Amino acid sequence: MKDALIDAADGRRTFVLVLETGDEVMHVLNAFARARHLQGSHFTAIGAFSDAVVAYFDWPTKQYRKIRIGEQVEVLSMIGDIAMSTNGPTVHGHVVLAKADGSAHGGHLVSAYVRPTLEVILTESPRHLRRKMDPESGLPLIDPSTAQDAERS
Amino acid sequence: MKDALIDAADGRRTFVLVLETGDEVMHVLNAFARARHLQGSHFTAIGAFSDAVVAYFDWPTKQYRKIRIGEQVEVLSMIGDIAMSTNGPTVHGHVVLAKADGSAHGGHLVSAYVRPTLEVILTESPRHLRRKMDPESGLPLIDPSTAQDAERS
Amino acid sequence: MKDALIDAADGRRTFVLVLETGDEVMHVLNAFARARHLQGSHFTAIGAFSDAVVAYFDWPTKQYRKIRIGEQVEVLSMIGDIAMSTNGPTVHGHVVLAKADGSAHGGHLVSAYVRPTLEVILTESPRHLRRKMDPESGLPLIDPSTAQDAERS
Repeated sequence: MKDALIDAADGRRTFVLVLETGDEVMHVLNAFARARHLQGSHFTAIGAFSDAVVAYFDWPTKQYRKIRIGEQVEVLSMIGDIAMSTNGPTVHGHVVLAKADGSAHGGHLVSAYVRPTLEVILTESPRHLRRKMDPESGLPLIDPSTAQDAERS
Repeated sequence: MKDALIDAADGRRTFVLVLETGDEVMHVLNAFARARHLQGSHFTAIGAFSDAVVAYFDWPTKQYRKIRIGEQVEVLSMIGDIAMSTNGPTVHGHVVLAKADGSAHGGHLVSAYVRPTLEVILTESPRHLRRKMDPESGLPLIDPSTAQDAERS
Repeated sequence: MKDALIDAADGRRTFVLVLETGDEVMHVLNAFARARHLQGSHFTAIGAFSDAVVAYFDWPTKQYRKIRIGEQVEVLSMIGDIAMSTNGPTVHGHVVLAKADGSAHGGHLVSAYVRPTLEVILTESPRHLRRKMDPESGLPLIDPSTAQDAERS
């Protein structure tokens, strides 16, 4: 993965991240978030994967069901955010993938291997975000009431 | 719905909105747009819905055909904008939704109920946008030639 | 196509572009990129097409396979970027399209005709991006290590 800071003003920073063949997306984004101390970011991306696992949140059981997409796919869209949870910065992304026939599939991104590129535009905001456990779903959800300035977090 | 202002500089404001179980998306976004006097915004979002109605614009009849997606779905992508029309701020959003089998579906968003969360990043620009009726399609389309500074609108 | 500058501060510029019936998307975006000297932009868009050609990158042959979607579709998502290559600014976009039954399809955007509108939000960053030929895939990929300030590019 290579990255560059393409815009920085008033406490906001925008990066381009270009992932390369073999990079695992969640691993790379989590490592980048820790290295750059990201605590309130949002991103979009396009590119292609050689293999991906997405998930569907099954409401009755409150469990993620994994779906393997074990083939070369175009990444039509990856949208997500980074917020603080008790374990540090947490990346949350959803993807839309196209198979060779052009049909679209996707879900909550569990893991994916890039081939040959993933172009990510990521903006870190001056105010930070925290996740808080939601008792009903069992998921850590963003709680805007805990947003705070970068200086204080 | 909870929200926080996460960036504000040079007349631009970026908010995070976190919708909760049972929130109807178009109602919440329209109410937020009126409350914050939004007149030129764009947004992206991810999350999940328990029930949604999307639409396809049928060109021969110039009518939207509604498609009900009455099941728990992942919101892989919601992209949209807010511009002024004669009735006040108008929210326009398109969604990509994934069913339990990972297949993707979507359309112009008519209405949708969140479950358990929808994470929206929305940026209001310093210059505002207006929609103008397009006689051929019968739709109110954004007319950039009417963009104006926030101070004057 | 009509456009307006809706935000400009600290070397960053955000435009809204509204394409109209009959506009070919890649032609319009490439012409806009050249006219405004764009060298490091990212964009999102929604709208509708009357006819589109997308592509899937077939890894074994390293060739794009074209897929024609010759019908009116909703553009659920168009995400992309603009970077410099040896021939000038290069637009790279991926689209998610919905057919009349709500099913989603897509790929790398080759060409598409708008009907009746495509609403694009495009941000040009103060630092610019270059593409460099990747020998393995044969594709020009963004190389962040060549990012440079607008003043020097």
